Amino acid sequence: MDGTGRLLIMCSDQTGIVAKTAYFFSQRKINISDCDQHVCDGLFFMRLVFEISDEKQTIENIRQDFSDEIAAPLAMTWKIFDAHHKKSMAILVSKPDHGLLELFWRWKKGELNGNIHCVISNHEDLRHTVEHFEIPFHHISSENKQQSEAAILELTQGKVDVLILARYMQILSENFIRHYPDNIINIHHSFLPAFKGADPYKQAHDYGVKIIGATAHFVTATLDAGPIIEQDVTQVNHRHNIEDLRTLGRDLERRVLARAVKWFLDDKIIINGNKTLVFNQP
Amino acid sequence: MDGTGRLLIMCSDQTGIVAKTAYFFSQRKINISDCDQHVCDGLFFMRLVFEISDEKQTIENIRQDFSDEIAAPLAMTWKIFDAHHKKSMAILVSKPDHGLLELFWRWKKGELNGNIHCVISNHEDLRHTVEHFEIPFHHISSENKQQSEAAILELTQGKVDVLILARYMQILSENFIRHYPDNIINIHHSFLPAFKGADPYKQAHDYGVKIIGATAHFVTATLDAGPIIEQDVTQVNHRHNIEDLRTLGRDLERRVLARAVKWFLDDKIIINGNKTLVFNQP
Amino acid sequence: MDGTGRLLIMCSDQTGIVAKTAYFFSQRKINISDCDQHVCDGLFFMRLVFEISDEKQTIENIRQDFSDEIAAPLAMTWKIFDAHHKKSMAILVSKPDHGLLELFWRWKKGELNGNIHCVISNHEDLRHTVEHFEIPFHHISSENKQQSEAAILELTQGKVDVLILARYMQILSENFIRHYPDNIINIHHSFLPAFKGADPYKQAHDYGVKIIGATAHFVTATLDAGPIIEQDVTQVNHRHNIEDLRTLGRDLERRVLARAVKWFLDDKIIINGNKTLVFNQP
Amino acid sequence: MDGTGRLLIMCSDQTGIVAKTAYFFSQRKINISDCDQHVCDGLFFMRLVFEISDEKQTIENIRQDFSDEIAAPLAMTWKIFDAHHKKSMAILVSKPDHGLLELFWRWKKGELNGNIHCVISNHEDLRHTVEHFEIPFHHISSENKQQSEAAILELTQGKVDVLILARYMQILSENFIRHYPDNIINIHHSFLPAFKGADPYKQAHDYGVKIIGATAHFVTATLDAGPIIEQDVTQVNHRHNIEDLRTLGRDLERRVLARAVKWFLDDKIIINGNKTLVFNQP
Repeated sequence: MDGTGRLLIMCSDQTGIVAKTAYFFSQRKINISDCDQHVCDGLFFMRLVFEISDEKQTIENIRQDFSDEIAAPLAMTWKIFDAHHKKSMAILVSKPDHGLLELFWRWKKGELNGNIHCVISNHEDLRHTVEHFEIPFHHISSENKQQSEAAILELTQGKVDVLILARYMQILSENFIRHYPDNIINIHHSFLPAFKGADPYKQAHDYGVKIIGATAHFVTATLDAGPIIEQDVTQVNHRHNIEDLRTLGRDLERRVLARAVKWFLDDKIIINGNKTLVFNQP
Repeated sequence: MDGTGRLLIMCSDQTGIVAKTAYFFSQRKINISDCDQHVCDGLFFMRLVFEISDEKQTIENIRQDFSDEIAAPLAMTWKIFDAHHKKSMAILVSKPDHGLLELFWRWKKGELNGNIHCVISNHEDLRHTVEHFEIPFHHISSENKQQSEAAILELTQGKVDVLILARYMQILSENFIRHYPDNIINIHHSFLPAFKGADPYKQAHDYGVKIIGATAHFVTATLDAGPIIEQDVTQVNHRHNIEDLRTLGRDLERRVLARAVKWFLDDKIIINGNKTLVFNQP
Repeated sequence: MDGTGRLLIMCSDQTGIVAKTAYFFSQRKINISDCDQHVCDGLFFMRLVFEISDEKQTIENIRQDFSDEIAAPLAMTWKIFDAHHKKSMAILVSKPDHGLLELFWRWKKGELNGNIHCVISNHEDLRHTVEHFEIPFHHISSENKQQSEAAILELTQGKVDVLILARYMQILSENFIRHYPDNIINIHHSFLPAFKGADPYKQAHDYGVKIIGATAHFVTATLDAGPIIEQDVTQVNHRHNIEDLRTLGRDLERRVLARAVKWFLDDKIIINGNKTLVFNQP
Repeated sequence: MDGTGRLLIMCSDQTGIVAKTAYFFSQRKINISDCDQHVCDGLFFMRLVFEISDEKQTIENIRQDFSDEIAAPLAMTWKIFDAHHKKSMAILVSKPDHGLLELFWRWKKGELNGNIHCVISNHEDLRHTVEHFEIPFHHISSENKQQSEAAILELTQGKVDVLILARYMQILSENFIRHYPDNIINIHHSFLPAFKGADPYKQAHDYGVKIIGATAHFVTATLDAGPIIEQDVTQVNHRHNIEDLRTLGRDLERRVLARAVKWFLDDKIIINGNKTLVFNQP
């Protein structure tokens, strides 16, 4: 079977990890087409892309063998992803459409290697926009958080790999987040850790900063504080009022969210505590 | 007398300010070579550069006339600076020399329109570096804050227009700051308001941000919270350890501090509450 | 009549221009809400925004009076635009839709102060996309340049103020361009003057540059050489193949084109020979 | 012997290169601390850093064994550098001191992992500056190119690993360059390939670009056309005159040259035809 696999590894640093791993693949006549590793604080991290061209091999076999021969003896935390298995996304959004449309456009252009399972919103406003792209749209009122979260779970669990909060103006409960560990990506419209919480552009304007930013991060139980995936900024000055900051910020949010989602879909991210490693960037 | 003046204005917005001001100069056959204004929240701000080529005019006369004819009737907060009067700086520094050297080098290149009156440090380390540039170096121990601040005041009061804290690792007392209202510029090695206080590069590394920054601001009684003059940032990733951040950060600090000092010396900054307006930038 | 006007001026530099101009407005009790000027090589340039709140005044009266009292005596090249008169655009495009969609989206958000009269393409591909936005779409084959240009003129002359080439893969004839002097904006997918002509991303890749760019410029008879309005760039490295450059480049093209169009619609641009001045930026 | 080695590889792509290379080191109980590879156009490139902690091993032994066991059978172009052997630089400069001082500062800070053997100039102007850093300064007149190049060779051949042209305003002959194949780094004050040759800031100003740049590249026989190592840019507008561009450009030149030199000293660069690959960046 022809195929492409992506291996992500995290383990204690020790001599021979690269050699053993590379040997594992070379023995099977599997070519390593990309490899990026990092050592930090006694930990070893690696992302390795391999190309199968032997019909007797499958990603599933390799996963099993790798587990037995390499991962178990070296006590690795690891995953092997099949690059041809497209991840499935649910996009959650309130009223602003810029993050959503940016993802749609890039997805239609083939930039995002995934499927959009559905869009869920606590408002009806974007139904027409979404349905024009022939993507299912679900309106779930946010009046009762418990009911609303249960409804979202019902629509997504077992069907999607990742939730993308493309300006979803609701705080998810700790209980809900537990269902998607390390699998919820949020875009926050500030350069975190500055200006957490509501209306960060107003906060930035009031503070008088000369640069504004946007941050894509994984969602954890602490508001606006999960592992950061990507950030970007733009310069501003006294001529910009709050509305100008919102306008400029939309461009940042679109870019930053799109990059983070792309990297997630391409299995480029390893989470280590409250931080991320993004491999083979850009 | 030939001369160049710079007028900074802040007042309530009302019809006719530009006209009256421009007419004031045109009556005297004084050319306006640059003019930048801004209106915000009911306030009018302007920076205007004028060129005197009439020997009967002096900056001093113009100052007096402007006060009587324009500023008083319109209830302006204003200043006229003589561009040929170079401002005098005292640079305060602890051990790191990068900000200091950057200022020295730009000053020697003629980029900074000011004089360096002296360098004051709470360590002896940089004496040789400073004296090589033929600039007076004063070591003032920081063991006793009250005595040390008194000594600094003695060296600078009435002799310098601005204090530059080019990585001076001491917190100045509210009492000291009162002697230099709006005339102390500090470089903080983070993208404020994130990572105030000690060792911001370590804070940034621990937090896992993907961008680090530096901030030049006026010093007020609240630590790392005065009006921001300039900020700049650079991207980082998981490969950078804290030492790498410090190295990259030095470049940011040098650039940001140099720009802020240049703008101050060129009378480009108006402070409005906790914010700055920087005119005719860049 | 309430109204906002924008005055653009170019003339020989001389004492009193600002004063006379400001006095002209203050006499009429018209407030100047923004003013940005520049002097260079003996020429004086200014953009001034004024707010009429007197019902006896109209933009048309002011235009006439300004012509007689100020512009004629001072031999100005000048224009007064009525900010409430939205400019009309025709967008020309071939197959790539990214520039077009970016303009549509910002226009719907209210970021672009103009009307989209129609979209003209030498291919049928984008008809559905355009018509979804309820904008007229015209397919004009480019097989015969003379006929095609005649057809474009027929559709646009007297009806639109500006042509936007949002990746229109045809070279317009000198004769055609003469009908839209200083009123055709093109996006070129390189950092001009590097990589003029066809397939600039391939040229950039072959050359091995570490930064790629995009350039929005006015169209003149010389290919890819008219006055530059805006440029932006992004870093690349050996990991990027040509397709990656095209993908990254699309983001640049979208941003740069959108900014240039916005500035044109807001009357922020003065063309001086082969260069532009962009006022009150950003 | 403790030690750190850096292996650079270029060869035809084929299955097993990473495995064989990694196995080579793991067999010897040598840890791989960093590894970055790239495949492109049928070619395989890798930079690998290894740490020796076994006293029976030396970089020299490893070099010999690697040549026999891996490089020869796989027909590699390769080099192993001893990280503890600091490369020796000669810096060539005319009158501008900014590139030179930037290298000095970073070198004193420990950012540049090399030795400065000497500075050679065709002017006397910088003697004092250089000698203050206790570095030998040689004035070699450029009146007679043949004699001057012979004198430079005499001062450097067999003594330095790389020549750094930190704004050296002389064109080196093809014959001279042949003595330092891939070992001369130049800083050009434009965003190449735009504005080759003399006075690029004037060229940029005349052209009306909105961004200026600087480029560090290896020197080949064709002027301003060797493999690019690094580029950086900054935005400009109509307010900047040529002198402003020179001032802003100096900052770019300093940054870009310093990065290129650092990467060269750290063995991060592979030259492939007219392009470079820079590994483990930043």
